[in-house]
Amino acid sequence: MSARLKGALAPVMTPFTRDLEPDTHRFIAHCKWLVANGAGLAIFGTNSEAASLSVDERLRLADALLEAGVPASKMMPGTGASSISDAVTLTRHAVKSGAAGVLMLPPFYYKGVSDEGLFNYYAHVIDKVASNALRIYLYHIPQVTQVPITLGLIEKLRAKFPDTIAGAKDSSGNWDNTKAMLDHFANDGFDVFPASESTLSAALALGAAGCISATVNLNPAGIRAVYEKWNLPEGPQLQAKADVIRKIFQSPNMIPAMKRVAAEFSGHRDWAVVRPPLVSLDDEGAARLMRELRAADFAMPGFADAMRG
Amino acid sequence: MSARLKGALAPVMTPFTRDLEPDTHRFIAHCKWLVANGAGLAIFGTNSEAASLSVDERLRLADALLEAGVPASKMMPGTGASSISDAVTLTRHAVKSGAAGVLMLPPFYYKGVSDEGLFNYYAHVIDKVASNALRIYLYHIPQVTQVPITLGLIEKLRAKFPDTIAGAKDSSGNWDNTKAMLDHFANDGFDVFPASESTLSAALALGAAGCISATVNLNPAGIRAVYEKWNLPEGPQLQAKADVIRKIFQSPNMIPAMKRVAAEFSGHRDWAVVRPPLVSLDDEGAARLMRELRAADFAMPGFADAMRG
Repeated sequence: MSARLKGALAPVMTPFTRDLEPDTHRFIAHCKWLVANGAGLAIFGTNSEAASLSVDERLRLADALLEAGVPASKMMPGTGASSISDAVTLTRHAVKSGAAGVLMLPPFYYKGVSDEGLFNYYAHVIDKVASNALRIYLYHIPQVTQVPITLGLIEKLRAKFPDTIAGAKDSSGNWDNTKAMLDHFANDGFDVFPASESTLSAALALGAAGCISATVNLNPAGIRAVYEKWNLPEGPQLQAKADVIRKIFQSPNMIPAMKRVAAEFSGHRDWAVVRPPLVSLDDEGAARLMRELRAADFAMPGFADAMRG
Repeated sequence: MSARLKGALAPVMTPFTRDLEPDTHRFIAHCKWLVANGAGLAIFGTNSEAASLSVDERLRLADALLEAGVPASKMMPGTGASSISDAVTLTRHAVKSGAAGVLMLPPFYYKGVSDEGLFNYYAHVIDKVASNALRIYLYHIPQVTQVPITLGLIEKLRAKFPDTIAGAKDSSGNWDNTKAMLDHFANDGFDVFPASESTLSAALALGAAGCISATVNLNPAGIRAVYEKWNLPEGPQLQAKADVIRKIFQSPNMIPAMKRVAAEFSGHRDWAVVRPPLVSLDDEGAARLMRELRAADFAMPGFADAMRG
């Protein structure tokens, strides 16, 4: 874990077979296509259905990427877990692999836990992994975990582990919170990633490091362009173009919707498969989605070829 | 999985060393003490900090109990998990071990999931485990999971898997829900367990199968007595006595409080250890707790001896 990973990162969708097994071949192909289009790889995030995978499945998929030559420097695997021993196993593996960093959920089973307990959790993982190369990005997604990463917790962790606590992903969808994270910490080597490209230009202006957004899975080049050119004359237009695509996917069924679109654009029907408790998008929903995407001139250049490759 | 497990079941506390490793010796000793005092073993529940354990740790602890001669017929391990592959692994292991049943949380990471998705999750586990011996108890604890087990879901699962879906634990703390579960399903071979002994007599009168309650860890004989004698003349007095103890533990810090009491009564300080994100009870809280327990003439007969054994 050396150079900081910045820019547009995809919480990489995990492809399954119709038997609900991870499809390693399509996973590698998707990651390679994302990297070729300028994206970083936040594998094993919320949109990856990582919570629906076992630890062993996650380790095997990560190893398969490395064996296929996908660069570890582009990877920020999700390694947070309810179980502190799982978090240690996953984080240790990521550090050994040379990943640029790890994106760590707080433990999300118990509710109403204290900042002291969360501090102890991260401190224990850092202590057990015991590596100067470890870079942790804290994952704030309170609407899912119900366990927030508060500014106070970030401050305490930064004070104790200044080199290890490298940044945060803010998935709250609350701009005031993203802005507060940036105002408090961005000038201090702390890399803040909002979870949607819709606030990317605004966040970059305040010192954000990029974004880690679901739709980077489908629109990597478009979102990368915003990251690179937000403060050039064409910036606002690129932001507006990315916003149009984002809005089409914005729904409680974002994961099934994105996977169905990957199926439509690759001709590979199994891309639509999700693991329970998620449910695949129905044909009517898919038809509506595809109409809207066509109206917006959306394309996934090279995606179908990458899946066949 | 043959005879139905009924009565007072403990969501067995998992003892840790001060290095946060599971302490197999004390785990076995605690389970034997519970069985000797008439309790069943709902190992790997919420009060077991099961969500803070890895799958491997759970499998090893379960195997250690079996090797130590603790009867599988007394066990109802928790096997639900966010990850459907973990749920399959844990459930398969429980069936092979001959456990009386399994207590299954719904997948608890994603929020706002549909009953269809939850049905698919349970159906997939049943399909993969593929055993006539499997008995599933659905675990309703919405204040923690934020994913309720609705009456409609129970009905659909019962209709499709009448022999496998054997009952439910209702940890909602909502008597109206417990009563509705009992009214709808208890006459039909569906075993409902409220999560507190405070409603045990009332629930038994409506056909409940017992209770699966945190405080069975400390007061197994007292709660077993309510189960056996609720409708005898001494029933109300036994219920009232159990209620007094229950109320002393009723707080958001129930797990640390119970573990601290186990430490005090066994002289084994490490009993107080919890895994993050939970935080151990402080000395002031412990002193208050012990004062209240002494005032209520609370004792744990044989517990210290069992821990030394």
